[in-house]
Amino acid sequence: MYSVPGIKTIKAAQARIKPYVHYTPVFTSSTLDRICGKQIFFKCENLQKVGAFKARGAVNAVFSLSENDFPAGGTEEKCVTTHSSGNHAAALAYAALCRGIKAHVVMPENAPPVKKEAVAGYGARITYSESTQKAREEALQAIVARTGAVFIHPYNDLRVIAGQATAALELMEQVPGLETIIAPVGGGGLLSGTAISAVSLQPETEVLGAEPEGADDAFRSLRAGKIIPQANPRTIADGLRTSLGDLTFPIIYKHVGAILTAGEEEIIEAMRLVWERMKLVIEPSAALPLAVLISKGSQVRGEKVGLIVSGGNADLDHLPWL
Amino acid sequence: MYSVPGIKTIKAAQARIKPYVHYTPVFTSSTLDRICGKQIFFKCENLQKVGAFKARGAVNAVFSLSENDFPAGGTEEKCVTTHSSGNHAAALAYAALCRGIKAHVVMPENAPPVKKEAVAGYGARITYSESTQKAREEALQAIVARTGAVFIHPYNDLRVIAGQATAALELMEQVPGLETIIAPVGGGGLLSGTAISAVSLQPETEVLGAEPEGADDAFRSLRAGKIIPQANPRTIADGLRTSLGDLTFPIIYKHVGAILTAGEEEIIEAMRLVWERMKLVIEPSAALPLAVLISKGSQVRGEKVGLIVSGGNADLDHLPWL
Repeated sequence: MYSVPGIKTIKAAQARIKPYVHYTPVFTSSTLDRICGKQIFFKCENLQKVGAFKARGAVNAVFSLSENDFPAGGTEEKCVTTHSSGNHAAALAYAALCRGIKAHVVMPENAPPVKKEAVAGYGARITYSESTQKAREEALQAIVARTGAVFIHPYNDLRVIAGQATAALELMEQVPGLETIIAPVGGGGLLSGTAISAVSLQPETEVLGAEPEGADDAFRSLRAGKIIPQANPRTIADGLRTSLGDLTFPIIYKHVGAILTAGEEEIIEAMRLVWERMKLVIEPSAALPLAVLISKGSQVRGEKVGLIVSGGNADLDHLPWL
Repeated sequence: MYSVPGIKTIKAAQARIKPYVHYTPVFTSSTLDRICGKQIFFKCENLQKVGAFKARGAVNAVFSLSENDFPAGGTEEKCVTTHSSGNHAAALAYAALCRGIKAHVVMPENAPPVKKEAVAGYGARITYSESTQKAREEALQAIVARTGAVFIHPYNDLRVIAGQATAALELMEQVPGLETIIAPVGGGGLLSGTAISAVSLQPETEVLGAEPEGADDAFRSLRAGKIIPQANPRTIADGLRTSLGDLTFPIIYKHVGAILTAGEEEIIEAMRLVWERMKLVIEPSAALPLAVLISKGSQVRGEKVGLIVSGGNADLDHLPWL
């Protein structure tokens, strides 16, 4: 049906996105090593363009499009679109800006002003909709019908997955011999990408997902062997409220060792530890790998552990510990 | 009277402290470059050991001590001491821990709990005093008399200055051709060190100090040609409330082009910009160089500008913009 990205595809993505994304640094903290009893390597995607790993997948998808992918009938020559209230919205706007094409982003009216400004700041046109999934999809379809824009899904897209896979690829280049890599899981783009990078390069490396207890659809889906959509997610980790897709689920099911979950207090504590000890601003979703390492470290096989710090777009006016 | 550290002394300090401090990274931000109309390089001492450049000076001073520097008559064989409620307290405690000797730190009773915990966490003994200068000095002298501890001043000490100078030395190694370097100025240890590094290696590089309007003793001292002590400092930049010392002043007077000042709103705005755009936790004092670059950029000669981001020990429970 489709071909899962292999190492050649991931390396091609790496070369394609290289001019537009940062090769992010890896940091360590002796204090956090001591707390966890592990040797931890933090892959800092909070320092990535647009403040999140999402830049990788969006840039790879947008630059993978050939002339033929853009229909001739639209009102605008070349155009991409998506619906998102989060980091993918800004990432797609940034990717389109890099390629010099237009982007239409459907955002819920009640999205935080800072998110709207970020998207607008990259020159994308915002279409506001009600915040229901139905309203967002209808608004998106209207844009596609009118402009011929190409829809780039936030995670259920092999080009996006291949782009997200480059974060773990870099991490393995930067830190040889990692025994375990942990990534947060929402829709599964980052986790599935991490898994295919690891299995291609270092099949002995354990890959784990980290998920909030209040949005544990990946945990339940792996146990059930099929996608269990997330209903009523309840977590401050706003990037992880979505459900797995039919492209991300099978990769995760096959290649990810386990999904570990953390409670809200554990997420907030881990987030604060990184701010306080590492002086890094990370968003709640990005704290999940550390949160599960602290609370469920006994279930993590490796002693030398890489964590994907997925993003840094925290709301500085509303800190969860205040 | 005394010999100002030259490049040999600074390079000796660099070699001496190397095993105990981080060679901190330099970050850039296209957004902040655009805001300032300059090419800015942030030397991230917020990512330094103990969360501030102070680790450099304290480690250099403590490891510069020879056996003969410790008097034989004290109750403890080898011991150092200081009075500080800020980053130097933790830095001296850390340095003593690295050398395996004892540290006594005089702190005001009303110091923030997180600062007390940091000092205690490095194994130093804390002696509490009233927060007046007189009470602190008396408590310090009692410790020296009882234990024979060697006093390491937070900034008015040539070994400390030589240690702080290594931050700019690294920055010039990391970014060739800087036209201007800006460092915050409180007691002047960092700024005088920055100046002697620059004048030794790149005498054409302009060195500027950045100071809060509410604690502008360095600005006034340079204008007067003599030390004007700071009375009643009023600024959130808690690291910059002190006055210049008789060792730091002459170096700054001779080698620093100007002291630029920023108001409290400008400091807070610059601090927030770094958190929001660069995803770095910095303390108010560390925001001064960017604050003056934003508000007084026309007085900065260079287009390629290095900023010393002095520390990241911000109070996460009391953010100044909330």
